[in-house]
Amino acid sequence: MDEARCRALFGSAPVARLATVGSDGPHIVPIVFAIDGDTIVTAIDHKPKTTRRLRRLDNIHANPNVSVLVDHYDDDWRQLWWVRADGTAVVIDDLAAMSDRLDLLVAKYPQYRTARPNGPLIEIAVTKWSGWSSS
Amino acid sequence: MDEARCRALFGSAPVARLATVGSDGPHIVPIVFAIDGDTIVTAIDHKPKTTRRLRRLDNIHANPNVSVLVDHYDDDWRQLWWVRADGTAVVIDDLAAMSDRLDLLVAKYPQYRTARPNGPLIEIAVTKWSGWSSS
Repeated sequence: MDEARCRALFGSAPVARLATVGSDGPHIVPIVFAIDGDTIVTAIDHKPKTTRRLRRLDNIHANPNVSVLVDHYDDDWRQLWWVRADGTAVVIDDLAAMSDRLDLLVAKYPQYRTARPNGPLIEIAVTKWSGWSSS
Repeated sequence: MDEARCRALFGSAPVARLATVGSDGPHIVPIVFAIDGDTIVTAIDHKPKTTRRLRRLDNIHANPNVSVLVDHYDDDWRQLWWVRADGTAVVIDDLAAMSDRLDLLVAKYPQYRTARPNGPLIEIAVTKWSGWSSS
Protein backbone atom coordinates (compact mmCIF):
# COMPACT_ATOMS: atom_id res chain seq x y z
CA MET A 1 0.00 0.00 0.00
CA ASP A 2 1.58 3.29 -1.06
CA GLU A 3 1.79 6.38 1.13
CA ALA A 4 -1.03 8.21 -0.63
CA ARG A 5 -3.36 5.27 -0.08
CA CYS A 6 -2.25 4.98 3.55
CA ARG A 7 -2.98 8.66 4.19
CA ALA A 8 -6.37 8.48 2.46
CA LEU A 9 -7.57 5.43 4.38
CA PHE A 10 -6.15 6.67 7.66
CA GLY A 11 -7.54 10.17 7.36
CA SER A 12 -11.08 9.05 6.61
CA ALA A 13 -11.35 6.78 9.66
CA PRO A 14 -13.28 8.22 12.61
CA VAL A 15 -11.14 6.55 15.27
CA ALA A 16 -7.54 5.44 15.70
CA ARG A 17 -5.48 4.02 18.53
CA LEU A 18 -2.49 5.85 19.96
CA ALA A 19 0.33 3.87 21.53
CA THR A 20 2.91 5.58 23.72
CA VAL A 21 5.63 4.16 25.93
CA GLY A 22 5.91 4.58 29.67
CA SER A 23 8.36 3.28 32.22
CA ASP A 24 6.04 0.34 32.86
CA GLY A 25 5.44 -0.60 29.23
CA PRO A 26 3.20 0.44 26.37
CA HIS A 27 0.04 2.48 26.83
CA ILE A 28 -2.77 2.47 24.29
CA VAL A 29 -5.90 4.59 23.97
CA PRO A 30 -8.52 5.20 21.29
CA ILE A 31 -8.42 8.70 19.81
CA VAL A 32 -10.40 10.88 17.49
CA PHE A 33 -8.02 12.75 15.25
CA ALA A 34 -7.52 14.72 12.07
CA ILE A 35 -4.64 14.64 9.62
CA ASP A 36 -3.02 17.31 7.50
CA GLY A 37 -0.41 15.77 5.20
CA ASP A 38 2.03 14.02 7.48
CA THR A 39 0.69 15.58 10.67
CA ILE A 40 -1.83 13.96 13.00
CA VAL A 41 -3.61 16.01 15.63
CA THR A 42 -5.72 14.83 18.54
CA ALA A 43 -7.02 16.71 21.54
CA ILE A 44 -7.49 15.71 25.12
CA ASP A 45 -11.17 15.38 25.98
CA HIS A 46 -12.82 17.86 28.26
CA LYS A 47 -12.24 17.49 31.95
CA PRO A 48 -10.05 14.41 32.25
CA LYS A 49 -11.05 12.90 35.53
CA THR A 50 -8.22 10.59 36.48
CA THR A 51 -4.46 10.72 36.26
CA ARG A 52 -4.61 7.62 34.08
CA ARG A 53 -6.23 9.58 31.31
CA LEU A 54 -3.20 11.83 31.11
CA ARG A 55 -0.63 9.07 31.00
CA ARG A 56 -0.29 9.55 27.27
CA LEU A 57 0.94 13.11 27.94
CA ASP A 58 3.47 12.05 30.56
CA ASN A 59 4.69 9.31 28.26
CA ILE A 60 5.12 11.68 25.31
CA HIS A 61 7.07 14.15 27.44
CA ALA A 62 9.46 11.34 28.44
CA ASN A 63 9.51 9.54 25.06
CA PRO A 64 8.08 11.25 21.97
CA ASN A 65 8.02 8.10 19.84
CA VAL A 66 4.42 7.07 19.17
CA SER A 67 2.53 4.71 16.90
CA VAL A 68 -1.03 5.26 15.67
CA LEU A 69 -3.20 2.57 14.10
CA VAL A 70 -6.37 2.55 12.03
CA ASP A 71 -7.75 -0.87 11.18
CA HIS A 72 -10.73 -2.34 9.42
CA TYR A 73 -12.22 -5.62 10.59
CA ASP A 74 -14.69 -7.73 8.66
CA ASP A 75 -15.93 -11.28 9.18
CA ASP A 76 -14.77 -11.81 5.62
CA TRP A 77 -11.05 -11.95 6.25
CA ARG A 78 -10.37 -11.04 2.61
CA GLN A 79 -11.57 -7.52 3.53
CA LEU A 80 -9.15 -6.75 6.34
CA TRP A 81 -6.79 -3.80 6.21
CA TRP A 82 -4.83 -1.56 8.51
CA VAL A 83 -2.69 1.54 8.29
CA ARG A 84 -0.09 2.52 10.84
CA ALA A 85 1.60 5.88 11.34
CA ASP A 86 4.84 5.92 13.30
CA GLY A 87 6.13 9.30 14.36
CA THR A 88 7.17 11.80 16.94
CA ALA A 89 4.70 13.59 19.18
CA VAL A 90 4.67 16.93 20.93
CA VAL A 91 2.16 18.23 23.45
CA ILE A 92 0.84 21.73 22.76
CA ASP A 93 -0.69 23.60 25.68
CA ASP A 94 -0.82 27.10 24.31
CA LEU A 95 -4.32 27.92 23.09
CA ALA A 96 -3.14 30.37 20.44
CA ALA A 97 -0.71 27.81 19.01
CA MET A 98 -3.46 25.20 19.02
CA SER A 99 -6.11 27.16 17.21
CA ASP A 100 -5.45 26.06 13.59
CA ARG A 101 -5.04 22.46 14.65
CA LEU A 102 -8.27 22.48 16.61
CA ASP A 103 -10.00 23.80 13.50
CA LEU A 104 -9.02 20.57 11.73
CA LEU A 105 -10.70 18.53 14.45
CA VAL A 106 -13.81 20.66 14.51
CA ALA A 107 -14.08 20.40 10.72
CA LYS A 108 -13.94 16.60 10.87
CA TYR A 109 -16.18 16.05 13.91
CA PRO A 110 -19.54 17.83 14.13
CA GLN A 111 -19.56 16.74 17.78
CA TYR A 112 -16.77 19.23 18.48
CA ARG A 113 -18.69 22.18 17.05
CA THR A 114 -20.75 22.61 20.18
CA ALA A 115 -17.92 21.60 22.50
CA ARG A 116 -14.67 22.80 20.99
CA PRO A 117 -11.78 20.99 22.67
CA ASN A 118 -9.73 23.16 24.97
CA GLY A 119 -6.64 20.98 24.84
CA PRO A 120 -3.95 20.19 25.44
CA LEU A 121 -3.41 18.92 21.95
CA ILE A 122 -1.06 16.23 20.72
CA GLU A 123 0.61 16.83 17.37
CA ILE A 124 2.36 13.92 15.70
CA ALA A 125 4.88 14.30 12.87
CA VAL A 126 4.55 11.05 10.95
CA THR A 127 7.92 9.68 9.88
CA LYS A 128 6.64 6.41 8.42
CA TRP A 129 3.34 5.21 6.96
CA SER A 130 2.76 1.45 6.76
CA GLY A 131 -0.27 -0.30 5.37
CA TRP A 132 -1.51 -3.79 4.79
CA SER A 133 -4.53 -5.20 3.05
CA SER A 134 -5.61 -8.84 2.82
CA SER A 135 -7.00 -8.44 -0.67
CA MET B 1 -16.41 -0.46 34.78
CA ASP B 2 -15.75 -3.55 36.93
CA GLU B 3 -13.47 -6.40 35.90
CA ALA B 4 -16.29 -8.76 35.00
CA ARG B 5 -17.78 -6.18 32.64
CA CYS B 6 -14.33 -5.46 31.16
CA ARG B 7 -13.75 -9.16 30.45
CA ALA B 8 -17.21 -9.63 28.93
CA LEU B 9 -16.94 -6.65 26.58
CA PHE B 10 -13.35 -7.42 25.67
CA GLY B 11 -13.92 -11.11 25.04
CA SER B 12 -16.87 -10.60 22.74
CA ALA B 13 -15.04 -8.19 20.42
CA PRO B 14 -13.76 -9.69 17.16
CA VAL B 15 -10.64 -7.51 16.99
CA ALA B 16 -8.23 -5.85 19.40
CA ARG B 17 -4.99 -3.92 19.06
CA LEU B 18 -1.76 -5.18 20.59
CA ALA B 19 0.91 -2.69 21.61
CA THR B 20 4.45 -3.83 22.31
CA VAL B 21 7.62 -1.86 22.91
CA GLY B 22 10.74 -1.98 20.76
CA SER B 23 14.02 -0.14 20.93
CA ASP B 24 12.62 2.47 18.54
CA GLY B 25 9.31 3.05 20.29
CA PRO B 26 5.88 1.47 20.49
CA HIS B 27 4.58 -0.98 17.92
CA ILE B 28 0.87 -1.58 17.38
CA VAL B 29 -0.98 -4.17 15.32
CA PRO B 30 -4.59 -5.37 15.06
CA ILE B 31 -5.13 -8.91 16.33
CA VAL B 32 -7.82 -11.53 16.44
CA PHE B 33 -7.78 -13.16 19.83
CA ALA B 34 -9.60 -15.25 22.39
CA ILE B 35 -9.70 -14.91 26.16
CA ASP B 36 -9.92 -17.45 28.95
CA GLY B 37 -10.29 -15.71 32.28
CA ASP B 38 -7.28 -13.43 32.59
CA THR B 39 -5.45 -14.95 29.65
CA ILE B 40 -5.47 -13.58 26.11
CA VAL B 41 -4.25 -15.68 23.22
CA THR B 42 -3.50 -14.63 19.67
CA ALA B 43 -1.72 -16.47 16.89
CA ILE B 44 0.59 -15.29 14.18
CA ASP B 45 -1.10 -15.45 10.80
CA HIS B 46 -0.02 -17.98 8.25
CA LYS B 47 3.08 -17.23 6.27
CA PRO B 48 4.19 -13.85 7.57
CA LYS B 49 5.83 -12.26 4.59
CA THR B 50 8.01 -9.51 5.98
CA THR B 51 10.20 -9.07 9.01
CA ARG B 52 7.96 -6.20 10.08
CA ARG B 53 5.14 -8.59 10.76
CA LEU B 54 7.24 -10.38 13.34
CA ARG B 55 8.36 -7.28 15.20
CA ARG B 56 5.77 -7.98 17.88
CA LEU B 57 7.59 -11.25 18.66
CA ASP B 58 11.03 -9.64 18.85
CA ASN B 59 9.61 -6.92 21.06
CA ILE B 60 7.97 -9.39 23.45
CA HIS B 61 11.19 -11.38 23.75
CA ALA B 62 13.02 -8.18 24.75
CA ASN B 63 10.20 -6.62 26.82
CA PRO B 64 7.19 -8.76 27.80
CA ASN B 65 5.03 -5.81 28.88
CA VAL B 66 2.12 -5.39 26.49
CA SER B 67 -1.16 -3.50 26.30
CA VAL B 68 -4.23 -4.67 24.40
CA LEU B 69 -7.19 -2.48 23.53
CA VAL B 70 -10.76 -3.08 22.44
CA ASP B 71 -12.79 0.01 21.66
CA HIS B 72 -16.23 0.88 20.39
CA TYR B 73 -16.74 3.97 18.27
CA ASP B 74 -20.08 5.54 17.45
CA ASP B 75 -20.99 8.88 15.90
CA ASP B 76 -23.09 9.32 19.02
CA TRP B 77 -20.31 10.07 21.48
CA ARG B 78 -22.53 9.01 24.36
CA GLN B 79 -22.05 5.44 23.13
CA LEU B 80 -18.26 5.25 23.24
CA TRP B 81 -16.45 2.69 25.34
CA TRP B 82 -13.11 0.95 25.54
CA VAL B 83 -11.49 -1.80 27.55
CA ARG B 84 -7.76 -2.19 28.00
CA ALA B 85 -5.83 -5.20 29.22
CA ASP B 86 -2.30 -4.61 30.46
CA GLY B 87 -0.19 -7.67 31.02
CA THR B 88 2.84 -9.80 30.35
CA ALA B 89 3.29 -11.78 27.16
CA VAL B 90 5.12 -14.95 26.26
CA VAL B 91 5.68 -16.43 22.84
CA ILE B 92 4.86 -20.13 22.52
CA ASP B 93 6.45 -21.99 19.62
CA ASP B 94 5.85 -25.58 20.65
CA LEU B 95 2.85 -26.99 18.80
CA ALA B 96 1.92 -29.43 21.59
CA ALA B 97 1.93 -26.63 24.16
CA MET B 98 -0.16 -24.48 21.86
CA SER B 99 -2.91 -26.93 21.12
CA ASP B 100 -5.44 -26.01 23.85
CA ARG B 101 -4.91 -22.32 23.23
CA LEU B 102 -5.41 -22.68 19.50
CA ASP B 103 -8.68 -24.48 20.24
CA LEU B 104 -9.92 -21.27 21.88
CA LEU B 105 -9.18 -19.33 18.71
CA VAL B 106 -10.76 -21.90 16.44
CA ALA B 107 -13.87 -21.96 18.64
CA LYS B 108 -14.24 -18.18 18.37
CA TYR B 109 -13.39 -17.76 14.68
CA PRO B 110 -15.05 -20.01 12.08
CA GLN B 111 -12.41 -18.67 9.66
CA TYR B 112 -9.78 -20.65 11.55
CA ARG B 113 -11.63 -23.96 11.19
CA THR B 114 -10.43 -24.47 7.64
CA ALA B 115 -7.04 -22.89 8.26
CA ARG B 116 -5.99 -23.69 11.81
CA PRO B 117 -3.17 -21.33 12.83
CA ASN B 118 0.19 -22.99 13.10
CA GLY B 119 1.68 -20.39 15.40
CA PRO B 120 3.71 -19.15 17.01
CA LEU B 121 1.17 -18.06 19.55
CA ILE B 122 1.29 -15.13 21.95
CA GLU B 123 -0.15 -15.73 25.41
CA ILE B 124 -0.78 -12.71 27.61
CA ALA B 125 -1.32 -12.91 31.36
CA VAL B 126 -3.51 -9.89 32.10
CA THR B 127 -2.45 -8.10 35.27
CA LYS B 128 -4.85 -5.17 34.98
CA TRP B 129 -8.21 -4.61 33.30
CA SER B 130 -9.28 -0.99 32.70
CA GLY B 131 -12.50 0.16 31.15
CA TRP B 132 -14.26 3.39 30.31
CA SER B 133 -17.68 4.19 29.00
CA SER B 134 -19.07 7.60 28.06
CA SER B 135 -22.57 6.75 29.23
